[in-house]
Amino acid sequence: MSALTLKLSTDDIVCPQGFLASAVAAGVKKDDGKLDLGLLCSTRPSIAAARFTTNVVKAAPLLLSQEHLEKSGGEIRAIIVNSGNANACTGNAGMQVARQMAELGSRILGISAHQLLVASTGVIGVQLPFERLEKQAGALKEGLKPEAIGDVAKAIMTTDTVRKICSAQVLIARKPVWISGMTKGAGMIQPNMATTLAFVLTDAMITRSLLEEALTEACNKSYNRITVDGDTSTNDTLAVIANGASGCPLIDERNDHYEAFAGTLIQVCRSLAQQIVRDGEGATKFIEIAVQGADSEAHATQIARSIANSPLFKTAMAGEDANWGRILCAAGYSGVSFDPNRTDIRIGSLPVCENGIGLRFDESQAKQILQQHDIRISLDLKSGTASSTVWTCDFTKEYIHINADYRT
Amino acid sequence: MSALTLKLSTDDIVCPQGFLASAVAAGVKKDDGKLDLGLLCSTRPSIAAARFTTNVVKAAPLLLSQEHLEKSGGEIRAIIVNSGNANACTGNAGMQVARQMAELGSRILGISAHQLLVASTGVIGVQLPFERLEKQAGALKEGLKPEAIGDVAKAIMTTDTVRKICSAQVLIARKPVWISGMTKGAGMIQPNMATTLAFVLTDAMITRSLLEEALTEACNKSYNRITVDGDTSTNDTLAVIANGASGCPLIDERNDHYEAFAGTLIQVCRSLAQQIVRDGEGATKFIEIAVQGADSEAHATQIARSIANSPLFKTAMAGEDANWGRILCAAGYSGVSFDPNRTDIRIGSLPVCENGIGLRFDESQAKQILQQHDIRISLDLKSGTASSTVWTCDFTKEYIHINADYRT
Repeated sequence: MSALTLKLSTDDIVCPQGFLASAVAAGVKKDDGKLDLGLLCSTRPSIAAARFTTNVVKAAPLLLSQEHLEKSGGEIRAIIVNSGNANACTGNAGMQVARQMAELGSRILGISAHQLLVASTGVIGVQLPFERLEKQAGALKEGLKPEAIGDVAKAIMTTDTVRKICSAQVLIARKPVWISGMTKGAGMIQPNMATTLAFVLTDAMITRSLLEEALTEACNKSYNRITVDGDTSTNDTLAVIANGASGCPLIDERNDHYEAFAGTLIQVCRSLAQQIVRDGEGATKFIEIAVQGADSEAHATQIARSIANSPLFKTAMAGEDANWGRILCAAGYSGVSFDPNRTDIRIGSLPVCENGIGLRFDESQAKQILQQHDIRISLDLKSGTASSTVWTCDFTKEYIHINADYRT
Repeated sequence: MSALTLKLSTDDIVCPQGFLASAVAAGVKKDDGKLDLGLLCSTRPSIAAARFTTNVVKAAPLLLSQEHLEKSGGEIRAIIVNSGNANACTGNAGMQVARQMAELGSRILGISAHQLLVASTGVIGVQLPFERLEKQAGALKEGLKPEAIGDVAKAIMTTDTVRKICSAQVLIARKPVWISGMTKGAGMIQPNMATTLAFVLTDAMITRSLLEEALTEACNKSYNRITVDGDTSTNDTLAVIANGASGCPLIDERNDHYEAFAGTLIQVCRSLAQQIVRDGEGATKFIEIAVQGADSEAHATQIARSIANSPLFKTAMAGEDANWGRILCAAGYSGVSFDPNRTDIRIGSLPVCENGIGLRFDESQAKQILQQHDIRISLDLKSGTASSTVWTCDFTKEYIHINADYRT
């Protein structure tokens, strides 16, 4: 199905038809003048699907967004988002602020408040000063234009060092359909059901139930396969809005059109998720952990994730040290039962362990592989036929530096 | 029952009656001349209980020790141990070396090979050069004396910066009974059933089944409550040998004598386990995480452990930052269902969060608390009556430094 995707770009973000965007600096971020308030909206009726964190501690905007999705029957028209403050662990006052944000968007766009999703990201446990957002109502409205979509991608950044965007075009019944997404995140990353903030806009025409299905599949194959530090955020939200403005026929069954759309959505989400890992706090390496020969995909993922979260593995990668014993050890405590005496491990293309026993290998060749920025670690359990891949980064002194003094 | 413990020391280790020890430098450690081979033995019949790692990847010496415990019916007389090489992921050749180590101890002590436990610690996946150990047979035998017990505690060190020992004396029917232990470990620490290496010798007289019970309880309340980096080792072994040389009456039922013994064993194991955390790789803080008001002890432990393993929490502690939002967030993704809107958090004695909402607190007071070496974080879920405590350390740049180049 990926053959149907005409273009995929991570350099530019194209605003799909019938959408507008706007971003301003409201002064919530410590650095004055940095964009920290954004609005994304469809100019015509649209539907949305979303996935939220599984953390039992859920931020106010997320609880409100769940409420609005239900109230509107999925007929979401816009997303209002701020960075610099997560509006999490803020109690009733925080919920009040989330409602005020939805009302602000409602006034600007002339739609019902419950047609907006609200998202916040930044520090936890501090009240969000709504008055700073309110002051920007005029500027936010005036700034609405398709080209501002890239500015919203900037406005959601926190410790991110780069803006994370992806645009893909796919032909559906010969109509070009755009799927464009933005995401943020560099730390507190171990998505479970959804991660951090990710907003995808598309001018495809699709039913709500199929949009939900496509998003679930895309999430499971992208955001649910990455980790930076094993910390699952209180604010994780992945939302997609579809408005049908492309003029493509309605996708209302699991046919070729659905496959083209869903396949492209997976590509966009995977690109966005991988951009998060590449920008992982303090990361110097992008590491792909591929497990095959498992008895189920869930077990393969669990083993790969256990390795991806092992501080000892991650520091070995930072040190470019072919310490494969830590890989097998982390697989061993993943909670999955497997036979270590059948397990093979490769670092890049270099076999380092066969049937659980270390092989003599050329250390200089291993070093050469580990000096690359992109590293692939593969395990073959030789037990079943299932496989999975998880993406992660290394663990460096810079991660400690970034996180030891984040709040103050 | 702790009132019965007469003395507890972590500065000196007293060799219980009827035990001998010896340690030599066999050249397995990279630093020539460092002690890396040790022998602990009872001069009279004795019994043992042990707990081993739950990692499915189990090192050869551990598999052999399990075999020997079974073969001997628990009548273990000695432990032979090396550091510098874990003899893990070494296949049949590694198992052969483990057997050779047991036979070496058997020849030196004149007991059956299956009356020995074998333990190894150090790098994973490299064959252990047994010939270096064998050369030391004479020196190891000649060195046997009670006073050498402290040298064995040195011989099991790897990245440890200090020797970890604890001796306690308890009166049982007015007979002074010694319980003396040693342990090692600073990284790859998240015990599950047992951790790293810990050997406890006692001259108490106790049945095997009660020794097992006492060890299980002590392990659950000590080693199973600590974490440095969430990595569960392939070589974790906690063993206790009891030889009855104190002349105390046989402990064969759950009476006051048992309580005195078991209570003291908990104290010794907890002291040893906490010494590991205090020496955690790169650690600058010793952190106690106490969760109360939970619906079960297991849930309280799970929440405390989730916080204790959160890189974001651990880096905040390194930065002396009262970022309590990360504490509640980590509790939230622990997998335990609880009501964040009832949860209170204190840093030291300072309330920072009440019913899930941040309190205004004096940042300078928080800073003062966090500048201490020992920090207590407490959570009250206000739901049930169960509680648990987990001990951990902070996460610093030094941890990365130590582990990025461990092997090479």
